[in-house]
Amino acid sequence: MICEIVSVGTEVVTGDIIDTNAPFIAKELSAVGVNTVYRSAVCDDMDLMCEVLEIAKKRAELIITIGGLGPTYDDITRNAVAKINNKKLYHSDEVEATIKEYFDRLGRTMMPNNLLQAKIIEDSAVVENPNGTAPGMILENDGKIFVLLPDPPNELIPMVQDKIKPYLAAKHEGYIAEKIIKIFGLGESYVESVLYDLMTQTKNPVIAPYAKLGEVHIKITAKGYDKQDALRLLSTYRDKIYSHFEKNIYGEDEDTLPSKAVELLKKHNKKVAFCESCTAGYIAKTLTDVPGASDVFGFGAVTYANEAKMTVVGVSSVSLKQYGAVSEEVAIQMAKGIKSISKADIAISVTGIAGPGGGTEEKPVGLVYSGFVTNNTSMVSKFNLTGNREKIRLMTVKNVMAMIINYLK
Amino acid sequence: MICEIVSVGTEVVTGDIIDTNAPFIAKELSAVGVNTVYRSAVCDDMDLMCEVLEIAKKRAELIITIGGLGPTYDDITRNAVAKINNKKLYHSDEVEATIKEYFDRLGRTMMPNNLLQAKIIEDSAVVENPNGTAPGMILENDGKIFVLLPDPPNELIPMVQDKIKPYLAAKHEGYIAEKIIKIFGLGESYVESVLYDLMTQTKNPVIAPYAKLGEVHIKITAKGYDKQDALRLLSTYRDKIYSHFEKNIYGEDEDTLPSKAVELLKKHNKKVAFCESCTAGYIAKTLTDVPGASDVFGFGAVTYANEAKMTVVGVSSVSLKQYGAVSEEVAIQMAKGIKSISKADIAISVTGIAGPGGGTEEKPVGLVYSGFVTNNTSMVSKFNLTGNREKIRLMTVKNVMAMIINYLK
Repeated sequence: MICEIVSVGTEVVTGDIIDTNAPFIAKELSAVGVNTVYRSAVCDDMDLMCEVLEIAKKRAELIITIGGLGPTYDDITRNAVAKINNKKLYHSDEVEATIKEYFDRLGRTMMPNNLLQAKIIEDSAVVENPNGTAPGMILENDGKIFVLLPDPPNELIPMVQDKIKPYLAAKHEGYIAEKIIKIFGLGESYVESVLYDLMTQTKNPVIAPYAKLGEVHIKITAKGYDKQDALRLLSTYRDKIYSHFEKNIYGEDEDTLPSKAVELLKKHNKKVAFCESCTAGYIAKTLTDVPGASDVFGFGAVTYANEAKMTVVGVSSVSLKQYGAVSEEVAIQMAKGIKSISKADIAISVTGIAGPGGGTEEKPVGLVYSGFVTNNTSMVSKFNLTGNREKIRLMTVKNVMAMIINYLK
Repeated sequence: MICEIVSVGTEVVTGDIIDTNAPFIAKELSAVGVNTVYRSAVCDDMDLMCEVLEIAKKRAELIITIGGLGPTYDDITRNAVAKINNKKLYHSDEVEATIKEYFDRLGRTMMPNNLLQAKIIEDSAVVENPNGTAPGMILENDGKIFVLLPDPPNELIPMVQDKIKPYLAAKHEGYIAEKIIKIFGLGESYVESVLYDLMTQTKNPVIAPYAKLGEVHIKITAKGYDKQDALRLLSTYRDKIYSHFEKNIYGEDEDTLPSKAVELLKKHNKKVAFCESCTAGYIAKTLTDVPGASDVFGFGAVTYANEAKMTVVGVSSVSLKQYGAVSEEVAIQMAKGIKSISKADIAISVTGIAGPGGGTEEKPVGLVYSGFVTNNTSMVSKFNLTGNREKIRLMTVKNVMAMIINYLK
């Protein structure tokens, strides 16, 4: 089903808001046969919006609008969709009661302007919004489907997942299965060259690699006449991809490098500790993005200054003078120091030059050493990273997560 | 000048890439009189792209395309723009030489397919791309302007700033001045209600508040017949806004909470140290996002476990037992402990419940205590934050940055 997503709102068009809703919808609905081919964004202006919707109605079968369902005078999506479909708006007592209930639950009073949100397009189905006051709507008219959704992501996401996706799935023939296989430490062009034959020899499944920072995600989209058929096809190609990249695959679908690291640490009943210089807490922060990380992580030191490296984790002043803070020797002493204080099973340190300043010919921006110490191993990795400060620090974090995963898997 | 931005690429339409280029361009060019009214995105397909460009050419005066200028067969933006303008493509020896030079500089060999990037639309002006192989183009035709840009942000951003913006500024009459005033700690609806009169009594300058997490940014856009005129107008309204919110304004334009905190710490020659539990390094990481933070920050401890709170910063086991880790008492002991180890002028601790688990009726998810200790002050702040784990942790970080700023300003 050819789909156009229309994002409504001057802030979206002028760039004051980054639209993450449209990408979410396009990805989420591709699994039920929705082929998003067009996207557009338009200001809160009646004439412009009608013009954009008329074009969408001509070229797409499914038109999904995001936003413009609020309670103020410039929220006009419902009016525009009604107008181009020659429909009227009516006041729904039922929707008004739902909105009132929502305010009651929050212990707040409904404002008179919220009544605007009880205006419904005739012949449309109301889509409940458990997290807000703007209901969604589905209008089938002239062989086209219009879906109207509010734009706060915490309202839109569950509405798409729980209501719109099942509604569209029921209209879709066959079944689409998807899987994302996640690789760390290989370049996109290398992955593509290895996958070239698989990618070109068949149109089903579709195999597409996407480059992320330091990672390549391979998405497999398999169409079958039923669920079993689609999953069988998916599984065959999943195995083929694993046979090429097994060593570098760290997870699938919702897995992230930190979630996988925490999962493996839990599984092996290991604790980890960090001593961070250039990342300054970024590694500990990222690991603890994962709920329940407290089972595997208890202590980290941010030894940004040389003084802290000496007093807190016992790096020798001689080594600091002789080799400098960014060196193999200091990295290993930092890791050993944090291991002994924390009593963790795995102790990891990083020291490097994140830039933009501080680089020299011998030690350029992007040079990072990482110490890795366990009860029976002790090693240092050296990285030459590129990019700006954030990229160098984030790549350091990702490399540390990958070190944990590779050690435990 | 009415503008439509057309983002090209299947990954953009299907949501596998979040488009940050179009918002950047819309914001950046509004200062030179470009009024972005439409945005659209289209797959890498010749027919679809021509259809979208034809519509854009009808309704906009300036059409900016992003992407589709790469060296592969599905990079067809140059062909599509040429086609709908009845222009031919020609091979430019000059551009070929520039591309070859680019590869030489990187010590890499130019691939034959890069020659595709030397294909230029006749009658267009080439826009140099110092950071990549795809040159941009500007085509003026039929009273319309087409601007073609490559999509990697590190290529696009300098091209827009250094080439496209001056080119469009020269076509623009009058001058547009912009300023963003940044507020922390006030709700959007409160700010809007205070600003209501200012926002509605005049169309020039335009005053628009934008809600960010914990922050409200007020954007003033003033049009004048020349620079001085625009700046004078801007300044008047800037003063009016300051008179309302002075206490909560932390900065302007490019300022961020951490950049302002680092700036003030430097100015007052103070050092700060952190002892983090629930944020687990997020505060130190955020402060050190700012280059040069090493002047004001040397040591942080991530005491995620109770064990670490006791052994590293000397929290008493009795307090932990009696009051729990998330308590005023433990927060202040953490701050005092880190102050004594680090010798910093300002020591800040946080301990809280970031969720999703771990909350109780008495101590719900979102409860955070922060200790703040200097040579002559010692206090604890209590926050009741809402949202998911990331939001609670980020709001904690922002509150800590604001505490530093408010203490020093």
